[in-house]
Amino acid sequence: MNYKKLDEKDIAFLRDVCGEDRVILGKDIPEDFCHDEMEGQSAVPEVMVFVLNATEVSLILYYANQKQIPVTPRGQGTGLVGGAVPIYGGILMNLSKMNRILELDEENFTLTVEPGVLIMDIYDFVEAHDLYYPPNPGEKSASIGGNVATNAGGMSAVKYGVTRDYVRGLEIVTPEGDILEIGGKIAKNSSGYSLVQLVTGSEGTLAVITKIILRLLPKPKVQQSLLVPFQSLSEAIQTVPKIIKTKVIPRSIEFMTQDMLQSSEQYLGRRFPDHTGNAYLLLAFDGNSREEVEKDSDQLAELCLREGAIDAFIIDTDERNEAVWKPRSSYLEIIKASTTDMDECDVVVPISRIADYLEFSRKVEEEAGFRVRSMGHAGDGNLHIYACRDHMDETVWKEKLDEFFTKMYTRAGEIGGKVSGEHGIGLAKRRYQRELEGEDVMRLMRRIKLAFDPNEILNPGKVI
Amino acid sequence: MNYKKLDEKDIAFLRDVCGEDRVILGKDIPEDFCHDEMEGQSAVPEVMVFVLNATEVSLILYYANQKQIPVTPRGQGTGLVGGAVPIYGGILMNLSKMNRILELDEENFTLTVEPGVLIMDIYDFVEAHDLYYPPNPGEKSASIGGNVATNAGGMSAVKYGVTRDYVRGLEIVTPEGDILEIGGKIAKNSSGYSLVQLVTGSEGTLAVITKIILRLLPKPKVQQSLLVPFQSLSEAIQTVPKIIKTKVIPRSIEFMTQDMLQSSEQYLGRRFPDHTGNAYLLLAFDGNSREEVEKDSDQLAELCLREGAIDAFIIDTDERNEAVWKPRSSYLEIIKASTTDMDECDVVVPISRIADYLEFSRKVEEEAGFRVRSMGHAGDGNLHIYACRDHMDETVWKEKLDEFFTKMYTRAGEIGGKVSGEHGIGLAKRRYQRELEGEDVMRLMRRIKLAFDPNEILNPGKVI
Repeated sequence: MNYKKLDEKDIAFLRDVCGEDRVILGKDIPEDFCHDEMEGQSAVPEVMVFVLNATEVSLILYYANQKQIPVTPRGQGTGLVGGAVPIYGGILMNLSKMNRILELDEENFTLTVEPGVLIMDIYDFVEAHDLYYPPNPGEKSASIGGNVATNAGGMSAVKYGVTRDYVRGLEIVTPEGDILEIGGKIAKNSSGYSLVQLVTGSEGTLAVITKIILRLLPKPKVQQSLLVPFQSLSEAIQTVPKIIKTKVIPRSIEFMTQDMLQSSEQYLGRRFPDHTGNAYLLLAFDGNSREEVEKDSDQLAELCLREGAIDAFIIDTDERNEAVWKPRSSYLEIIKASTTDMDECDVVVPISRIADYLEFSRKVEEEAGFRVRSMGHAGDGNLHIYACRDHMDETVWKEKLDEFFTKMYTRAGEIGGKVSGEHGIGLAKRRYQRELEGEDVMRLMRRIKLAFDPNEILNPGKVI
Repeated sequence: MNYKKLDEKDIAFLRDVCGEDRVILGKDIPEDFCHDEMEGQSAVPEVMVFVLNATEVSLILYYANQKQIPVTPRGQGTGLVGGAVPIYGGILMNLSKMNRILELDEENFTLTVEPGVLIMDIYDFVEAHDLYYPPNPGEKSASIGGNVATNAGGMSAVKYGVTRDYVRGLEIVTPEGDILEIGGKIAKNSSGYSLVQLVTGSEGTLAVITKIILRLLPKPKVQQSLLVPFQSLSEAIQTVPKIIKTKVIPRSIEFMTQDMLQSSEQYLGRRFPDHTGNAYLLLAFDGNSREEVEKDSDQLAELCLREGAIDAFIIDTDERNEAVWKPRSSYLEIIKASTTDMDECDVVVPISRIADYLEFSRKVEEEAGFRVRSMGHAGDGNLHIYACRDHMDETVWKEKLDEFFTKMYTRAGEIGGKVSGEHGIGLAKRRYQRELEGEDVMRLMRRIKLAFDPNEILNPGKVI
């Protein structure tokens, strides 16, 4: 695309809309805003504007669309696929100051928020009202706007599903500047195409989200975890389909390996409560009665022991809970701190194929020549496979990394998997997405993009 | 649109694809296939073809798209908004013979089916494997393809959500003839725009669904209902937000009125087990422990009694269960049998506004001059308001009906509601949908339609 470079007049327009203070010129933009958490992809926008409401977003998009200026929306920048990197320059639209919790509606079980609210603030707010927002991504300082844009998943998907299952309504601004209210506080809706579901997971390429109506649940009264050490990762993983077949549904089924726990002890400076296993399953249960939760937990503990687990520890104090879950939720930081550069495969496969797929990944890893670490959501088939550069030469690393990803995603496609379980496609995974989905699907997605954004000004170069 | 009329050559093509037996010419098509359950809208297709697989669907759509022949997909024809009526003639594509259950995958909790499978057959099949398909529309002889196409809701949405929450993957054929596999047996997916969610609820206007991967749950071990008579409908309805606020989530919260139960006794020829109330709440509970279900049921029974209920009857035998739920699920037939002609408003409003809205509906009803009957899903805000013509003059009826609908939908829009909670827009509700959603939203939906169907051959004249 042939995008217009911003000139004095364009900057003056932005200052008219937002005021002097909220318009930051390219040279004054801190480097942190030029990339996300996967720092390999970086670009400096011509200008960054902090928007405060849908009207400002609309005025800016309408103008940018007329002038053919690219606009990239950004939340907290905690993404991992370069989705918020302004690769064509233009305007970086920073939504982090739109961070008000607007309304808790206890009669309709909804929470209405602006997109810049952090998910950790949502948890605190609703739990104080004995309510529950189930999606549970590792990165709690992410903004809810980003979570909706990527359809974030997390550790509670086995039982509760993902972000899209909790988005009831949205206010969006289209690239042509229309402010639309879609969906609402309603529990059912069969009134035309689901624009809410289409915009959710579209990574800021179809519209800018300016308000979100989230569905809440009652907060479960009781929770408990189970830490289960195994002799080997394959033993641990092969137990998962057997867990699923019992029809007891834990909130989470996560897996971790011994080497990851060693790194975590170094990074967090605290000992993990057990060292007997080479691999671990970490299960969480919740419900409204103590007996029910304990019965489920006991049943799966016994199953794991029958399947060769070394032990099964009940984790029911806050302190022990913190000790076992902290390494799990800090793992991205831990692995980043352990190496010079890294990249990640957020692949998802059917639950029944996880064991095979991890087996395959070990073979590919041997050929790769760099260090690979795996962990993830054993209960929903979403794996995080980290490639660590360490001291590998940069050119070799890039080549090997591409080979590695190609093999991993190709295999995922063969067994009914997809490129991304929860992080999105963004900039980094487009090629693999195209290969896995095929030309017909991508053509349809491209036409949908043009239906929303005929001039391709909104977050260009992402997803499709 | 200027559609081509079918000629000898076109018919010969269809016979080549499907064989002689599965191609029925217009004059030989039974009248039943020219309308759905709302018989007011009717049209004879030029030809009806029974398709057996995605390849046949693809060949026909590719051909029809080249020749500009309209194609209308049809399942069991149990719709209520004319969605399967071939208003431009052309080809009626009957999917009812694609009715195989293809695979139960107990490791991934999925059931793969063809679109023509009846939902009652799905219930029987999965329950025999101790599994559960939660969406619970009244019409059990509907096909699953139609349920996905309309995003059918039903009586279990309070706790379990609607059809779209259980669609993991689809095989679709686009109007240009591409056969696409979208989604899959995976529990998470953030790999580009959610075509699965976009096609679900699109009422056969974007693609023909040829295979469906449904998500299943474990079957709850215990269930119980509660029948609660009240002195008045407004007392019953005003209790619902209080139920919601307890944070106990029943599977269903339905309401019924005395006059409806009288009609049901006449129609079904069996007495309803209670006659003390002018209005009833009917609650269902399920779970895995008897104690838990009884505790929830007792808590809400006590609440209802405090709020003025006459009594609260526990329904825990199959026989009593049948006696109270049968009138609820047969109500459409009951009301159709009671009048000369009828139409229905399947509006959805926020749960907190149901009482107001029913109050408003009573006023509008007085002005309408025809008989109105309401029932529906008190727990999810989806009301079924039936207008009964009885002996009103047809011209007057049509005029009055339009006035009635306009008032009802306008009011729904004002309080954050939508035109359809679960039956869809089809042919009958397009005008109200356009008015309620506004021009900007409809333009976006129209562009999405053209992204899939540039020649507008697939189910033209519906939804948008």
